[in-house]
Amino acid sequence: MMLQGQRLRGVARMAPLWRRTMTTGAAPLDASKVKITRTKTPSKPKPNDELVFGKTMTDHMLTVEWDRTNGWAVPEIKPYSKLSLDPASCVFHYGFELFEGLKAYRTPDDKITMFRPDMNMKRMNKSAARICLPTFDSQELITLIGKLIQQDKHLVPQGTGYSLYIRPTMIGTTDSLGVSVPDKALLFVIASPVGPYYKTGFKAVRLEATDYATRAWPGGVGDKKLGANYAPCILPQLQAAGRGYQQNLWLFGPEKNITEVGTMNVFFAFQDKNTGKKELVTAPLDGTILEGVTRDSILELARENLDPNEWEINERYYSINEVAERAAKGELLEAFGSGTAAVVSPIKAIGWQGKDIDVPLLPGEQSGPLTKQLASWIAAIQYGKEKHGNWSQVVADLK
Amino acid sequence: MMLQGQRLRGVARMAPLWRRTMTTGAAPLDASKVKITRTKTPSKPKPNDELVFGKTMTDHMLTVEWDRTNGWAVPEIKPYSKLSLDPASCVFHYGFELFEGLKAYRTPDDKITMFRPDMNMKRMNKSAARICLPTFDSQELITLIGKLIQQDKHLVPQGTGYSLYIRPTMIGTTDSLGVSVPDKALLFVIASPVGPYYKTGFKAVRLEATDYATRAWPGGVGDKKLGANYAPCILPQLQAAGRGYQQNLWLFGPEKNITEVGTMNVFFAFQDKNTGKKELVTAPLDGTILEGVTRDSILELARENLDPNEWEINERYYSINEVAERAAKGELLEAFGSGTAAVVSPIKAIGWQGKDIDVPLLPGEQSGPLTKQLASWIAAIQYGKEKHGNWSQVVADLK
Repeated sequence: MMLQGQRLRGVARMAPLWRRTMTTGAAPLDASKVKITRTKTPSKPKPNDELVFGKTMTDHMLTVEWDRTNGWAVPEIKPYSKLSLDPASCVFHYGFELFEGLKAYRTPDDKITMFRPDMNMKRMNKSAARICLPTFDSQELITLIGKLIQQDKHLVPQGTGYSLYIRPTMIGTTDSLGVSVPDKALLFVIASPVGPYYKTGFKAVRLEATDYATRAWPGGVGDKKLGANYAPCILPQLQAAGRGYQQNLWLFGPEKNITEVGTMNVFFAFQDKNTGKKELVTAPLDGTILEGVTRDSILELARENLDPNEWEINERYYSINEVAERAAKGELLEAFGSGTAAVVSPIKAIGWQGKDIDVPLLPGEQSGPLTKQLASWIAAIQYGKEKHGNWSQVVADLK
Repeated sequence: MMLQGQRLRGVARMAPLWRRTMTTGAAPLDASKVKITRTKTPSKPKPNDELVFGKTMTDHMLTVEWDRTNGWAVPEIKPYSKLSLDPASCVFHYGFELFEGLKAYRTPDDKITMFRPDMNMKRMNKSAARICLPTFDSQELITLIGKLIQQDKHLVPQGTGYSLYIRPTMIGTTDSLGVSVPDKALLFVIASPVGPYYKTGFKAVRLEATDYATRAWPGGVGDKKLGANYAPCILPQLQAAGRGYQQNLWLFGPEKNITEVGTMNVFFAFQDKNTGKKELVTAPLDGTILEGVTRDSILELARENLDPNEWEINERYYSINEVAERAAKGELLEAFGSGTAAVVSPIKAIGWQGKDIDVPLLPGEQSGPLTKQLASWIAAIQYGKEKHGNWSQVVADLK
């Protein structure tokens, strides 16, 4: 319903220019140029039990403006403050927005580390390229986030399960109602001290297998961390909540394949009754599945640490019908979501066709044994108790 | 990758409250309460040839805040100005945004009318409900838009093809990184004086039939005017532009059904060689198609005015293969996009499987006869030369 012709001619003319400035010419993102303005009123850390996820924010933020002609401007770390944007900015109208979520942890030797930030930066660049927002050198943004954390290091909470949640975000700021490739953008990073997902161990959740709403599809953007993938999933979640389920287990296609849970990836563990062999399974990265960093870490740790005579680790299609049938045969062992916040989130029941498929838990506990094991492996790396390649990267120093 | 458990428990608790305040309790949108602050520096109208769609804006804007507890606040008409928003606002992260596009016209008797604004308001409420943003009384917003136009009436351009493009927008403003039902929102309306789509008659466009990217999916939100539907379509448009096509003709499914073109609905006209009967066809509203006001108007005018002995008017599935086959047989008469900006936008060729399907045009002209006829019927109603029910609604007075 736009001035289609005008903008199309515009985009057609613009395309070669856009490609050129994406690859050469305009200034790259450069962490060494950062300008730091410290707050005059630094806050004191809140008690751990008063931290509210994504609501308690740190004192500073990082902003970097971009425009097609000049490229990335001087990065600024400055007191957390409101953004001032023209109401015609394309982020308000056409969904030019993407984000990442990652965490920073205090280590026993007083460093602050981030968990696999290179994976988040790589995904952020893929998200940006998919909606024609500018890309950047991953290491430069990691360095800048480190400098941001350094300003607010006293606000990185202490204690097992506590961390600093970091939210890099990019929005299109072109102030014109024509739908076109944004010629201006803003990259910003804000941070929120957060507590453990489960204050006292796990709390297994109940899911509704959902086939009346579709989260993502082939040829769409379900594998990118775009704003577009989130708002449409809230109403189905409310509908599931009204039936007593905390989250949607997203199915896809006539096969009712399992794709994700809520905003997490999902894993199932089965055991073949005949052979005794166990299998850990998750959906393959076919463009409809978010390329979760925790998902990737779980697969790698499972492949490294689980006995291959006992376990198969598979990325394959599997349906809610397979889950229902294998549960009925006693072959369903465990199920859990995986994501940055909870690492693993155990599942205790799945509503499907008016009945609940029960997922076994350890007696008197809120997870199965594999779920627990995987969570502890990852936590040990995140909190600096174990080393795993370069998964934990030092980004700031507490001393 | 969010603090899934926390927010789920939050949403589960919140749902009944949310439903309650949506229907009762909190204040409704009330146009009679509007507070008007006029600019101290009113602008002069630009010459018609300097108007840039969506870039030249009027002097005033309408804003109305909403929160779950209090409902709709006092509407404000005030000088056009930047929005100031917390960087954690959910509009920047999770795509909580929707919009409408409609036009106001000067009539021969010095009124300003809007074309079928009730249709846009109805659709805006459907968009809002789909992503859990607040709904409102349609007539109240129409009245408020009228008052906004009244402030800037001198900026509604004169001349055939000129109009005021109006952009009602709603964004979620909850400043928390938890993905949840927004408890705060902002409705705003801005306006842009615009020129005719085609300054000198039609200019037919070339489309690329696109099956490598998918605009919308059953169970998705393709029928709603959400930001989520727009940004992901820009990259495929650039790819098509690189091959010499101005827009994507969006196909769906293994049948390669035709759904939309760019951000417009699309119509095809065929003639059966055996029977001589003509058919005007567009895709049915199955949840993947935007419920276009122009689409609806074209269907209604065609059903009222075209001879039923000569024409069938059908909303049905049809594929690019059908178009290719019928073009080869000489049965393809015309094709055009439909939308608020261009009303109808004629198509002259469609790239498919490495070849162009040519669409006939009138000799020496840029459209077929039906396309031209439909455009003139609608223009006559929009510019107040013909009356059609309550399609043209007076919203302001130039005197």
